[in-house]
Amino acid sequence: MIKLPILVAKNATKGGTSVPLESEPMSLRFEISATNDRSRRGRLLTPHGPVQTPVFMPVGTQATVKAVSQDMLEELGVELLLGNTYHLYLRPGVGQIRKLGGVHRFMGWPHAILTDSGGFQVFSLSDLRKVTEDGVSFRSHLDGTTHFLSPEGTTEAQIGLGADVIMAFDECTEYPADEQRARASMELTLRWAERCKKYFEEHKEERPWISCQPSALSHQSDCRSLDFPDESANRFFSSARDDRASTATLTGKAQALFGIVQGGMDHALRKESAERTIEIGFDGYAIGGLSVGEPRAVTREIVESTLEHLPKDKPCYLMGVGTPEEIVEYAKLGVDMMDCVLPTRAARHGLLFTSEGKISIKQARYAGDEAPLDLNCSCRTCRRYSRAYLRHLYASKEVLAQVLNTVHNLSFYLDTMRRVRHSI
Amino acid sequence: MIKLPILVAKNATKGGTSVPLESEPMSLRFEISATNDRSRRGRLLTPHGPVQTPVFMPVGTQATVKAVSQDMLEELGVELLLGNTYHLYLRPGVGQIRKLGGVHRFMGWPHAILTDSGGFQVFSLSDLRKVTEDGVSFRSHLDGTTHFLSPEGTTEAQIGLGADVIMAFDECTEYPADEQRARASMELTLRWAERCKKYFEEHKEERPWISCQPSALSHQSDCRSLDFPDESANRFFSSARDDRASTATLTGKAQALFGIVQGGMDHALRKESAERTIEIGFDGYAIGGLSVGEPRAVTREIVESTLEHLPKDKPCYLMGVGTPEEIVEYAKLGVDMMDCVLPTRAARHGLLFTSEGKISIKQARYAGDEAPLDLNCSCRTCRRYSRAYLRHLYASKEVLAQVLNTVHNLSFYLDTMRRVRHSI
Repeated sequence: MIKLPILVAKNATKGGTSVPLESEPMSLRFEISATNDRSRRGRLLTPHGPVQTPVFMPVGTQATVKAVSQDMLEELGVELLLGNTYHLYLRPGVGQIRKLGGVHRFMGWPHAILTDSGGFQVFSLSDLRKVTEDGVSFRSHLDGTTHFLSPEGTTEAQIGLGADVIMAFDECTEYPADEQRARASMELTLRWAERCKKYFEEHKEERPWISCQPSALSHQSDCRSLDFPDESANRFFSSARDDRASTATLTGKAQALFGIVQGGMDHALRKESAERTIEIGFDGYAIGGLSVGEPRAVTREIVESTLEHLPKDKPCYLMGVGTPEEIVEYAKLGVDMMDCVLPTRAARHGLLFTSEGKISIKQARYAGDEAPLDLNCSCRTCRRYSRAYLRHLYASKEVLAQVLNTVHNLSFYLDTMRRVRHSI
Repeated sequence: MIKLPILVAKNATKGGTSVPLESEPMSLRFEISATNDRSRRGRLLTPHGPVQTPVFMPVGTQATVKAVSQDMLEELGVELLLGNTYHLYLRPGVGQIRKLGGVHRFMGWPHAILTDSGGFQVFSLSDLRKVTEDGVSFRSHLDGTTHFLSPEGTTEAQIGLGADVIMAFDECTEYPADEQRARASMELTLRWAERCKKYFEEHKEERPWISCQPSALSHQSDCRSLDFPDESANRFFSSARDDRASTATLTGKAQALFGIVQGGMDHALRKESAERTIEIGFDGYAIGGLSVGEPRAVTREIVESTLEHLPKDKPCYLMGVGTPEEIVEYAKLGVDMMDCVLPTRAARHGLLFTSEGKISIKQARYAGDEAPLDLNCSCRTCRRYSRAYLRHLYASKEVLAQVLNTVHNLSFYLDTMRRVRHSI
């Protein structure tokens, strides 16, 4: 087990503003407790609780994992949620969430949250956006209004939302892209990464939750009362676990900023992107620009080769991946964090993952099937309902179909990751 | 406290088929534990557990209370659900549910269920239906196919679904209706009531769950194992409470059939309808044909005058009522059971009931409101989320809005009824 220093020496990184170590809130702490070949098992200690890794993060686009209540997410063992900056920026707006104390308090989720930079959503708007050196102008998918997101703007937005882990603004290189295009895109991402880092260092004290002062770090209750100042607010967070409260003391109250490696499907560019991103200095590193249409074998090769160039003592996050088989595979390669809309989106379309393969619950063959969805699953859905009932709910377009199907698919993903952790 | 005999002497009622008392499964038992003026507090002992009265029944149209899982209904303290025969008849079909062991097992709800006769839904189809002496022919709202529901047909359907309490097929007289029309409609309902009773007495042994034999009544575990023959089925019902299991022994395994009083807004016709319905003999009596557009004062008068003519030792069910104020009012008049789609439907439209009045959560004024929906409510929604968050979910058309809003409104209705019971 590798123990890292509690205080991350940020002032040692190139380009960071020099803040004296003793007055700086502590950043993300990453503890690796076991390794097995290339895979590793660990804990990410965030201001809002510990996260066991490798971790799969359910996607909570609009500050909600579609159809599932926060209580149920806790019951499933979710420790880290992903929120989408693009969606929250448009609705209800960053200012609104900041005024309400940040996204944790806003959505009644006292555990860890990661926000993306909004870059991927903006790039998905294709016809509605324009990229310049400065940033991206785009039209809202909601009302057609024009907006502009820059590295500084998205970092400001993510500081306002106040997630535990926030992401640098990157350009997700399209597939296919020739070497020249992939390099230009990678260079842009690197320039943007520096701007994000600079803005973050200058503004990270502005997060909506109040930081514990270093002198108060030993007074755990003071830290929490600063964050949740009155009793009526605390009732929203009554389910916070004790061990999480103590972690807040350990890790302080700083947000962590992750850099993103790009470089298309080119191994040399990926290596260069990794090295230069590390040089800028981040709390963790993400592999972006994959699962954009390339063959699966290529994805795997790029992940494998990029991982070689990432620091072993920092969390590695593979973005937007994947199927149950893939998340196992990538965890075995040494990836610590993954997210994907697949389990939740597929659930809403009646596609369910089970220990015996995929099931399309809309099929007539399940109309009289009394068996639970997955005999090897102990989620709320499988404990109580038959396939026949789930098929009826889906055919009848009942909202409960979305609830029960999503609970099951998330349970399947989280169980899968739990098994991977136990195997390390 | 009035104690009624455990075995209801069905063979004493006029027109009932004569079944020897000792071989007949026991019917619904109704215990009144306290009275206060005209109101009464009691327990309905059904084959699937006791129900405290006065009771408000959430509506589970398609074998689901829209957006709310059965676990959450249990947590809210729901003891009796209403299912709609019309909807289940069309989808997934009575045969399917019968094959799957009945509606309790189908929907994973081991507690009490009441089904309506489908009459009200069919009459609501206006252009799509035709009433004759024999029954009602109608076209499905789903696919336009033609169907025919008769008193015998709907009773057969309800025996197939296997709810604890089933309803006679009635004609819901439209409003306004003159004396002649109201009488003709009432007479038709009475003729249909006799046909329902006759069919029920001849076929009630055909319910999908197997009856405990009287000789086995003391062997509780045997009764349950007959009903849930294997372990994999039992896992669907693991949450059944022990006190409910013991009730199964006490009350036996018979379905109960309720008659419905009609007669428009005419006091004399209501009296006559009540008396002649009682003469046919039912396990309980419902007041139908109200909340069809008449002024609220008229509804109240009709309820009050009809109640005078109903037997004091049988449960009285006022159908399709009402607002929170109304359910309190009618419980005080002596009504034991009520149902209404209002709390669930209003919730899905963002209309929420609180101790300080109604709230339309879509309003912009709640966008920054950190308070819980109702400070006096301890439901899952009020314990954890702010009005600002609920407003965001609603504005974003998130499914979780339906879930959380429905949980709250049902909690408000059930709390209201709990307070009424405590006040008696």
